[in-house]
Amino acid sequence: MKKTVNASRRAFLTKSTVLATGGALAALTGPARALGDRALAPAVRYHKIYDVIVVGSGFAGLAAALEAALAGRSVLVIEKMPVCGGNSAINGGAVAVAGSPLQQKEGITDSPELMYQDMLKAGRGLNDKEQLKILVNNTNAAYEFTLQHGVEYKPFVQHFGGHSVPRTLQTVQSSGAGITRPLKDSATKLGVMFRTRCKLESFVQNADGRVIGVKVRDGYRFPDEQSGQIRHYGARYGVVMCSGGFSNDLRFRKMQNPKLDERMDSTNHPGATAECLVQMMRIGATPVQLDLIQLGPWSSPDEKGFGYVSQFNTIAGFPHGIMVNPRTGRRFTNELADRKEREDGILAQVDEQGNPEYPICFTTLEGAKQAQSLVHALHYDVAWQFDTLEQLATHFGTPYAPLKEEVDEYNAAVARKGGDKMKKDVSRAVSLERGPYVAVRVWPKVHYVMGGVQISMKAEVLNAADSKPIPGLYAAGEATAGSHGGSRLGSCAVADCLVFGRIAGASAATAAPVTDNSYNAGEI
Amino acid sequence: MKKTVNASRRAFLTKSTVLATGGALAALTGPARALGDRALAPAVRYHKIYDVIVVGSGFAGLAAALEAALAGRSVLVIEKMPVCGGNSAINGGAVAVAGSPLQQKEGITDSPELMYQDMLKAGRGLNDKEQLKILVNNTNAAYEFTLQHGVEYKPFVQHFGGHSVPRTLQTVQSSGAGITRPLKDSATKLGVMFRTRCKLESFVQNADGRVIGVKVRDGYRFPDEQSGQIRHYGARYGVVMCSGGFSNDLRFRKMQNPKLDERMDSTNHPGATAECLVQMMRIGATPVQLDLIQLGPWSSPDEKGFGYVSQFNTIAGFPHGIMVNPRTGRRFTNELADRKEREDGILAQVDEQGNPEYPICFTTLEGAKQAQSLVHALHYDVAWQFDTLEQLATHFGTPYAPLKEEVDEYNAAVARKGGDKMKKDVSRAVSLERGPYVAVRVWPKVHYVMGGVQISMKAEVLNAADSKPIPGLYAAGEATAGSHGGSRLGSCAVADCLVFGRIAGASAATAAPVTDNSYNAGEI
Repeated sequence: MKKTVNASRRAFLTKSTVLATGGALAALTGPARALGDRALAPAVRYHKIYDVIVVGSGFAGLAAALEAALAGRSVLVIEKMPVCGGNSAINGGAVAVAGSPLQQKEGITDSPELMYQDMLKAGRGLNDKEQLKILVNNTNAAYEFTLQHGVEYKPFVQHFGGHSVPRTLQTVQSSGAGITRPLKDSATKLGVMFRTRCKLESFVQNADGRVIGVKVRDGYRFPDEQSGQIRHYGARYGVVMCSGGFSNDLRFRKMQNPKLDERMDSTNHPGATAECLVQMMRIGATPVQLDLIQLGPWSSPDEKGFGYVSQFNTIAGFPHGIMVNPRTGRRFTNELADRKEREDGILAQVDEQGNPEYPICFTTLEGAKQAQSLVHALHYDVAWQFDTLEQLATHFGTPYAPLKEEVDEYNAAVARKGGDKMKKDVSRAVSLERGPYVAVRVWPKVHYVMGGVQISMKAEVLNAADSKPIPGLYAAGEATAGSHGGSRLGSCAVADCLVFGRIAGASAATAAPVTDNSYNAGEI
Repeated sequence: MKKTVNASRRAFLTKSTVLATGGALAALTGPARALGDRALAPAVRYHKIYDVIVVGSGFAGLAAALEAALAGRSVLVIEKMPVCGGNSAINGGAVAVAGSPLQQKEGITDSPELMYQDMLKAGRGLNDKEQLKILVNNTNAAYEFTLQHGVEYKPFVQHFGGHSVPRTLQTVQSSGAGITRPLKDSATKLGVMFRTRCKLESFVQNADGRVIGVKVRDGYRFPDEQSGQIRHYGARYGVVMCSGGFSNDLRFRKMQNPKLDERMDSTNHPGATAECLVQMMRIGATPVQLDLIQLGPWSSPDEKGFGYVSQFNTIAGFPHGIMVNPRTGRRFTNELADRKEREDGILAQVDEQGNPEYPICFTTLEGAKQAQSLVHALHYDVAWQFDTLEQLATHFGTPYAPLKEEVDEYNAAVARKGGDKMKKDVSRAVSLERGPYVAVRVWPKVHYVMGGVQISMKAEVLNAADSKPIPGLYAAGEATAGSHGGSRLGSCAVADCLVFGRIAGASAATAAPVTDNSYNAGEI
């Protein structure tokens, strides 16, 4: 009996055959009907074989695709949603660059070392230091890269919370789409193929465990997990995972942090879910710090998702205004602290029953002049305008006297360009002496996962068993851990995605291609 | 060609064959020489087939084995180290029980609900609440269970940090061996087989993805990963993972928290490594909160590992003494706060260069009378005895005046049974008025990982893709996440291991056994 099996096995192994590694892996016995997704896939025939496949079409995916295409590789980008861009296309398009020409023009002294210190401090020392060094040393090159591909920035530098100096550039559109659109156009011109509604089901590996392709659902309609048609695409050089985070995956995020349950909204697009992370873990990727999940401290309880208020607070309310508790009229945090500190500060504003007392953030019309989203926020009644501070106080039922006292103290600090009692840098802030005022309400939303898979400095995905690269698999952006540690600073995600997306694309493009018989069955 | 492959495949699948799921999975093509560990294992022949296999021989493993054996199952416990017991055998043998007869005898009012609140508070709300409820509701039954199997406890209740009331019982041996030895003896009498030097390599799954056995290295000699002989053991009812944490796996723990690097010692035995966690993730288990790693706040920089000082501080120094900075002579934390708070407090005692200023913890001989380890600590020169406070101050180079002031303030609080400035419960504390004094130095060591795999309330290991049970796989104890969240309270691990070890063993024992042809090849 044993002999027969071996003979059969030998005959079997002479064929070019791979196993699609989806579902519960590696089961090969029992009645054939039970095999399902775990089945031996006899001589996988690929719908098409590319050099490099990129999963995800946000900042990291586009940067990776561009680098691979520029290196002469054929590239397929797959995107499960109906449109490209993911969270990248709906955020504020703000990117931290250490030592940019605009900083120099404005006389701001900055350096990669200073950005490193800022990010390490915000990250509570939980960052991967080597990875962080690579990030901060390459923001200027990433910025140049975006310019070359047609991205346009506003002609001034902004000061985001937790950064020592103003170092954030922003697209003229005030949106990440100002980056994803030109990068996608540029990639398309270079021959990169984009397939939307194409969802990764699992990886295909060869005998050496090298990732040589993907099994997908083509024509997938989120969130119908049975929709679309199963197809395989080959990747001779590598697969690059730029599949983002899982802030909108309630099941997965609640497992990691039970406090982030149904009651917490998220700024993310609906497709920000964990299935690609799960598939990477199934072939050995190392999960790191999955429970470190960031809340955006600038969002509004009065609108869904990212909304208009987030941009208002980032550009206007926080740098040029103050945030107070509505019941006491008192400030409670440095409005430019890192996100974790602000998040903790805001979440502490609850009544005795633990119900939120949504803080009020306000500035003057002058302070809000760069906030393009304000007009929309006013229109949709999620921001309000008042001629006087008294009117503002009355609207929110806030006691006027302590509020006035806070405003006066703050104005005094602004006038002397320092000494704010919350230790906020007010050297460039606007005075709140004269209205009209604009105000919003604030409550955090799940925004970003610092955790993800561990990568090497070449953006190779590392195996949990031995920290060696899983051949053929690369990752960048929110899908990875390491750059941000305990708390990410605003506008550092875009930088991270661009820097490591480029590295991942270049690494995949310069890998040794698959030369065994894995693709013998050819394309369909 | 395709036809030939399919014919071959059909012939192949009629054989009883499973794939050993070690290494990079699911690859079945290419030259046979490359297959290695990923090879198709033709008709796995088991060295022996049991009903239940338990991996790990600490508290959880022994409780699981006992329950399975009591349910009439044949049970194999495998242990990779040369001796059984793991960390369980080298800890203090202290177990939190809510509402024990000893508490009633001492007039202490306690309840599962109070223990729940204490653990949820310490856990920063990151605990799995349902899991925690099961734990606190079953500590008394677990205690009774240990009594039935011959465990003996000291006739008094202790007050461990972070607990609202004294609820910790301790074995007469002051060691976890006081639990593991009688439990192992009892299990042996019930027919449970123990194999030491037997290391899990990977799981064996059948066509339905059910775990039906394990691939091991028998005769393994830690840490030689190539030692021993590859064997397979079958498990008709289930495999129970009681494989502990990874506090001594420098590579793995440093990935999760880069601050816990080479410079941090651990209290754990050398075998507390991550390979079982990695294998569980490879077949789909959900990693949760892996970066939540606890430092023991009571250990000494003057000895390796758990040592003698840890017990001294837990039983004597912290409840009956005070801890001061050696340079200032000042207290800096509630010595009975939860572990995280004390850990943070101690780690903040550094000089301007960031070098540790090892805090001094001391009490009187009277305060230390229950600390059996003191005699050893004095003998090995990791604790010191002084007739007067002046002598103590001189020995450590600590300024006497502020130290005396701290002691006087503390004594006043002890005298009035309350009002300690660090908010410590001093109602049962000993006065520090009169020597002789005994003192130790303190610095935290990596002690426990709160994270691990996610389990159901039946201790089934849950799949990351859909949170459904992985058939045939159970887990309990430090290998799992959920009970402790952000910070575990002292003596709650033993309770957790016993409660969920029993549940896991009972769940496996009452599962439907494997009835397909998986075991057709039989035993060797």
